[in-house]
Amino acid sequence: MRKLKVGMIGGGFMAKAHSLAMTAAPMFFDDGIILEKYKIADVSLESAKAAAHKLGFTSYTDSWQEIIDDKEIDIVDIVTPNHLHEEMAVAAAEAGKHIICEKPLGRNSEETRRMLEAVERAGVKHQVAFNYRKTPAVELAKKYIEDGEIGRILSFRGTYLQDWSANPDSPLSWRFQESSAGSGALGDIGTHVIDLAHYLVSDIEQVMAMTKTWVKERPIQGGVADSLGKIKTDSCKKGLVDVDDQLITLLRFENGAVGSLEATRNAWGRHNYLTFEIHGEKGSLYFNYERRDELQVCFSEDPDDRRGYKTIYTGAAHPYGDGLWPIPGLGIGYSEVKMVEMHDFLKALQQDTTCQPSFLEGHRISEVCDAILRSAANNQWEITKSLSIK
Amino acid sequence: MRKLKVGMIGGGFMAKAHSLAMTAAPMFFDDGIILEKYKIADVSLESAKAAAHKLGFTSYTDSWQEIIDDKEIDIVDIVTPNHLHEEMAVAAAEAGKHIICEKPLGRNSEETRRMLEAVERAGVKHQVAFNYRKTPAVELAKKYIEDGEIGRILSFRGTYLQDWSANPDSPLSWRFQESSAGSGALGDIGTHVIDLAHYLVSDIEQVMAMTKTWVKERPIQGGVADSLGKIKTDSCKKGLVDVDDQLITLLRFENGAVGSLEATRNAWGRHNYLTFEIHGEKGSLYFNYERRDELQVCFSEDPDDRRGYKTIYTGAAHPYGDGLWPIPGLGIGYSEVKMVEMHDFLKALQQDTTCQPSFLEGHRISEVCDAILRSAANNQWEITKSLSIK
Amino acid sequence: MRKLKVGMIGGGFMAKAHSLAMTAAPMFFDDGIILEKYKIADVSLESAKAAAHKLGFTSYTDSWQEIIDDKEIDIVDIVTPNHLHEEMAVAAAEAGKHIICEKPLGRNSEETRRMLEAVERAGVKHQVAFNYRKTPAVELAKKYIEDGEIGRILSFRGTYLQDWSANPDSPLSWRFQESSAGSGALGDIGTHVIDLAHYLVSDIEQVMAMTKTWVKERPIQGGVADSLGKIKTDSCKKGLVDVDDQLITLLRFENGAVGSLEATRNAWGRHNYLTFEIHGEKGSLYFNYERRDELQVCFSEDPDDRRGYKTIYTGAAHPYGDGLWPIPGLGIGYSEVKMVEMHDFLKALQQDTTCQPSFLEGHRISEVCDAILRSAANNQWEITKSLSIK
Amino acid sequence: MRKLKVGMIGGGFMAKAHSLAMTAAPMFFDDGIILEKYKIADVSLESAKAAAHKLGFTSYTDSWQEIIDDKEIDIVDIVTPNHLHEEMAVAAAEAGKHIICEKPLGRNSEETRRMLEAVERAGVKHQVAFNYRKTPAVELAKKYIEDGEIGRILSFRGTYLQDWSANPDSPLSWRFQESSAGSGALGDIGTHVIDLAHYLVSDIEQVMAMTKTWVKERPIQGGVADSLGKIKTDSCKKGLVDVDDQLITLLRFENGAVGSLEATRNAWGRHNYLTFEIHGEKGSLYFNYERRDELQVCFSEDPDDRRGYKTIYTGAAHPYGDGLWPIPGLGIGYSEVKMVEMHDFLKALQQDTTCQPSFLEGHRISEVCDAILRSAANNQWEITKSLSIK
Repeated sequence: MRKLKVGMIGGGFMAKAHSLAMTAAPMFFDDGIILEKYKIADVSLESAKAAAHKLGFTSYTDSWQEIIDDKEIDIVDIVTPNHLHEEMAVAAAEAGKHIICEKPLGRNSEETRRMLEAVERAGVKHQVAFNYRKTPAVELAKKYIEDGEIGRILSFRGTYLQDWSANPDSPLSWRFQESSAGSGALGDIGTHVIDLAHYLVSDIEQVMAMTKTWVKERPIQGGVADSLGKIKTDSCKKGLVDVDDQLITLLRFENGAVGSLEATRNAWGRHNYLTFEIHGEKGSLYFNYERRDELQVCFSEDPDDRRGYKTIYTGAAHPYGDGLWPIPGLGIGYSEVKMVEMHDFLKALQQDTTCQPSFLEGHRISEVCDAILRSAANNQWEITKSLSIK
Repeated sequence: MRKLKVGMIGGGFMAKAHSLAMTAAPMFFDDGIILEKYKIADVSLESAKAAAHKLGFTSYTDSWQEIIDDKEIDIVDIVTPNHLHEEMAVAAAEAGKHIICEKPLGRNSEETRRMLEAVERAGVKHQVAFNYRKTPAVELAKKYIEDGEIGRILSFRGTYLQDWSANPDSPLSWRFQESSAGSGALGDIGTHVIDLAHYLVSDIEQVMAMTKTWVKERPIQGGVADSLGKIKTDSCKKGLVDVDDQLITLLRFENGAVGSLEATRNAWGRHNYLTFEIHGEKGSLYFNYERRDELQVCFSEDPDDRRGYKTIYTGAAHPYGDGLWPIPGLGIGYSEVKMVEMHDFLKALQQDTTCQPSFLEGHRISEVCDAILRSAANNQWEITKSLSIK
Repeated sequence: MRKLKVGMIGGGFMAKAHSLAMTAAPMFFDDGIILEKYKIADVSLESAKAAAHKLGFTSYTDSWQEIIDDKEIDIVDIVTPNHLHEEMAVAAAEAGKHIICEKPLGRNSEETRRMLEAVERAGVKHQVAFNYRKTPAVELAKKYIEDGEIGRILSFRGTYLQDWSANPDSPLSWRFQESSAGSGALGDIGTHVIDLAHYLVSDIEQVMAMTKTWVKERPIQGGVADSLGKIKTDSCKKGLVDVDDQLITLLRFENGAVGSLEATRNAWGRHNYLTFEIHGEKGSLYFNYERRDELQVCFSEDPDDRRGYKTIYTGAAHPYGDGLWPIPGLGIGYSEVKMVEMHDFLKALQQDTTCQPSFLEGHRISEVCDAILRSAANNQWEITKSLSIK
Repeated sequence: MRKLKVGMIGGGFMAKAHSLAMTAAPMFFDDGIILEKYKIADVSLESAKAAAHKLGFTSYTDSWQEIIDDKEIDIVDIVTPNHLHEEMAVAAAEAGKHIICEKPLGRNSEETRRMLEAVERAGVKHQVAFNYRKTPAVELAKKYIEDGEIGRILSFRGTYLQDWSANPDSPLSWRFQESSAGSGALGDIGTHVIDLAHYLVSDIEQVMAMTKTWVKERPIQGGVADSLGKIKTDSCKKGLVDVDDQLITLLRFENGAVGSLEATRNAWGRHNYLTFEIHGEKGSLYFNYERRDELQVCFSEDPDDRRGYKTIYTGAAHPYGDGLWPIPGLGIGYSEVKMVEMHDFLKALQQDTTCQPSFLEGHRISEVCDAILRSAANNQWEITKSLSIK
């Protein structure tokens, strides 16, 4: 059993999710690697110490550079706000560390291109945490598509609707500022839809977009970390939101399919409503992450009097079923999704294959985001690909 | 009780729906008018006779002009393919008849403008059969919006997905030919979404669209009337489909809201999946016609620990509840929706008010359709309004 | 085309439903019979006149005997409170009329036995209005069962949950008094579940029941007809409820299956929640009338990785699809269900076959009800069948 | 931070679930206790070693007595087949260990009484793993009930439907034999419903039950551990199933409410379908574990035109929201449920309070099970309580 040491940068909610996955994945899957939670860095010694104790890291620091410089560390896991990703990832790559980086990979495709170049130059493993494609029901959708079960794909409709910041009194965290986030709903949640579209359909070739910023200012949040709107602030002082909180986009795919993407933070009653519907010549697929144990599928080849959407609960007979719970419906939660993601990372390390999704996928998504913002600004169709990569 | 005589032009499935509504509406609502099913015209004497017997008309003819010319007739009900609407409606208006016309009002906004001008000139009542807004749950959504219950509307997502012609062997009826239908999925089903958007949100000001024709040829259908894909044909001879079978459109509304519209005939597993979701500053609404007894609504003002989408089954406490069935869940079907539509028409006649939706709304929808087709052709945003009306 | 004259007794909500069905059925189905709404009787001349005008009857009376005595009348349709059924039906039978009688057939099986004997003696057609089995999705369930698609039936779970009288201030109509209703939730809604159980599984052989009367007194309603809780009353005077408003029953079927039945009027949020789930050796079925366009079915023979409940929307490919709307999802409402029921009655008349369900089925249901009340009183299993019939 | 050592007995699927929870709970909740996975026992040294490596235990043994005898161990976690619970738990209690025991607590109430007496005598902490009540949505239901939000409870309907062994070729594991399991569907899944009923409503006072064994023999399974039907066996040799695989039971509660309980292993299409619906004088609650992020609730006090079942996704505003994921819909899976269970155990240890549910609750459930089996055998109502406890 190979043992690798992890240095984590960041101590918020995603640090918890990743730490859990590191501990849990080996209980569910046999990848030949055990991760040691070796050192965690956070903005202050105090918060780093607290995170280390809570999440089970052996040591802690308030200097992320220390993570990079520590020769003992094999893997760097970056769970910080977006504007820090590039510097950290490039440094980690140059130090020869394997990297897991939270999504979106960077604030824009210039950053992500440099990140991609760095990891490729260094020859390290690199994975970006677009975790929702790791949901077993999504993997089942992928399997049906690859097996030709729904035929040639005609169209895709993806949404990601949330309401944690629909209230204008929800505080102005880093997620609402371009300098730290790059973009708003687009980078935060829209990118997950783009990842699913790329994974399940094909590369997005052209986009035509609209963006909106409905809540134009918010109370300035104190020193606390982002808590996704949970912690209210007493501040009366407000600051400007300079990123989108809604986008709607038309999509043209490389394989000829068409589609749309919508992401909004102003959808009262929708919390983590990441959905897609895919129509193919031979069938349809529907998924809603809020009911993530289920995939809906309709096969055109069923007889006329018994055709309809079928609700399939994923279990032992489906992707990752060997490792996860023995019967369907026991429960796929965020823990399980993050475990699967970590398992895939470990498997790629052990088998020396490319991680999925890697920085390349992360960069492609950033290119699409850039094109979406250009399109929204210019009111015209935009091509997503730059010329230099792929 | 006032008694009015109806002349119906057309003898297909919509003739049945309208005839039922004429008979049923007075049993449910007291509008002071009783309709006499007086005369029906169809393409042949034989089919007209059969329709008359089946639907309860006193007389029949194979000449629609006879309907126009008959002085006894007060109301002309046009349930023919789209390309016949203009000539018939203009003639009926000039003959001083009140008019119900199936949707879409015409093949394009030039036709609908002339139709609108004709009815306004003649001073007759005119209604276009965008019936889905008559569903009690849709009227409840309208009521919530007008009462300010969900606040300022931010966005609208409307879909109409069907699969009756997803099979490429489904025959080439008039609905797949521009000469008879004007457009494809757009005119046939997309217009219903536009009507709901106009009714619930505000006028659509600009559109940015994509259209697709996935099934490019279909078996030529024999002499039979359109049966929505039900009757298979033995013909090996195929004809070209020259209209869209899918469209996706970005929307900008007059009141500042944004949105999207999607309509497709290639959505396996979706049959009459007319849905909308509306997000406002204070709440959200969701409706799916396939489960038309229900409206989903989320109010932001509910306390944090008990906020969520609520499923409201319409009944006596809701719009049209005085007339329809006494308790929720007894069942709103197509019959009930068409009855409500007829009731509203009769009420407008009796109270001498404007029908809703009238040819004006029908014309505005056609303008949006024209803009959608222009946008899809030109790949750019298009303004929907011409200058001369409104 | 044969023309038969109908005399209706009763002028409330069910009179409307039946009248609509009489008019509508011939528009949808070709049964060779046209019904003439000839005469209607109600409690006062005034209300009878109003009903005649509203529902389209030619004449009216305040004497139900006049309906019986009128030689012109072929069919008597009884839509009165339960305690009047026997006298009216027996008189109608003796007068040689065919009979449609609302459910439950009588207050108890002594009444229903006499009714059954009367119609059999007279040789007239007789149908009892357990209409919910006429829902196309229920007929589809029946078809799957008969085709062996779900194998031997193991168990049945049926519920009928309502809330129109959950509020204790809802008035004391005839439905809450034993003298007029026979029983409460049992006769009013539980009987529909029994009918579905008999239709889909097999005869109920033994029952073990509990009943409850949660709301023990209610405001006495004025002279108005029952309006299912819709009309509030100002009366402060209260009267005793002497029937059940909830029952739960274990079931043993003749074919070896087991099951349960629950009916309650105190289920806030459930309006017309008539459901069943049936588990067989080869599959399962689920139906909820509140979403009556749909049948849910799971076939065990589907492969392990694609087994699940399928949602089938009924349309042209399913029972009654030839007559009803051309595509699934256009809408099955109460109107459509009542039309199908009337169509089946007319077909039985025209083809001289036995109506389904007839007074025999109605009587069997009454026997089950009697056994349920006995079981609840005696706290023991009871056999449902008396010896003399079948 | 207090550190306690755990000895686990059993190495199957539940060992994984418990081990994960031990590691994860401190990452989510701050209970002041860290558990060390110290030693694990399984049937062979080989399997114990494998489990230790996989689940992160420091040491292993093939002798469960060694767990009892090890002075270092503070907590014994029993995840073995049912017939082993008593001996192990009594020994652990006598050795002064705190105990977590998988459910059902024992094969019958004689066993559970002795277990309860042993832990009470020893004064150790004791928890039985009826984990489903730990689902945040269930805790939210409990909160609403305690806050009086749905008023006095009138009725309860609980089901637990599965299909992992609906196929008669699914092997004969210990779960199908009385000697090892005590009972079948009753003990395995029915007990979870009883626990929810007790927790949410009140003690079950009387039961009236039916049981069935639909699949009377199954292929004998080789030496492998139970895998919930996942592993097929090649054996042609069959053995007798001597426990129930379906039960339906009427319930009378101490507080006057009534209800029903159904559990079956023969419900094709239902996998882990643990549901309850509770009707109170002021509202209703519905929960389905297969969609465990959601609680459905209807409040009667909502206005007439906006009353309906509301879908609440649990998150930060709901029970355990401080510790779990920051927004609703991120995902409650089996991991999260088991974490909450472990957190509650640790909190009880740290605060020196009684665990919930403890062996007392486990024993009460066994008394209800015994009464259910007696009732099914005797065909009569049975009282659930013996006299000596409570």
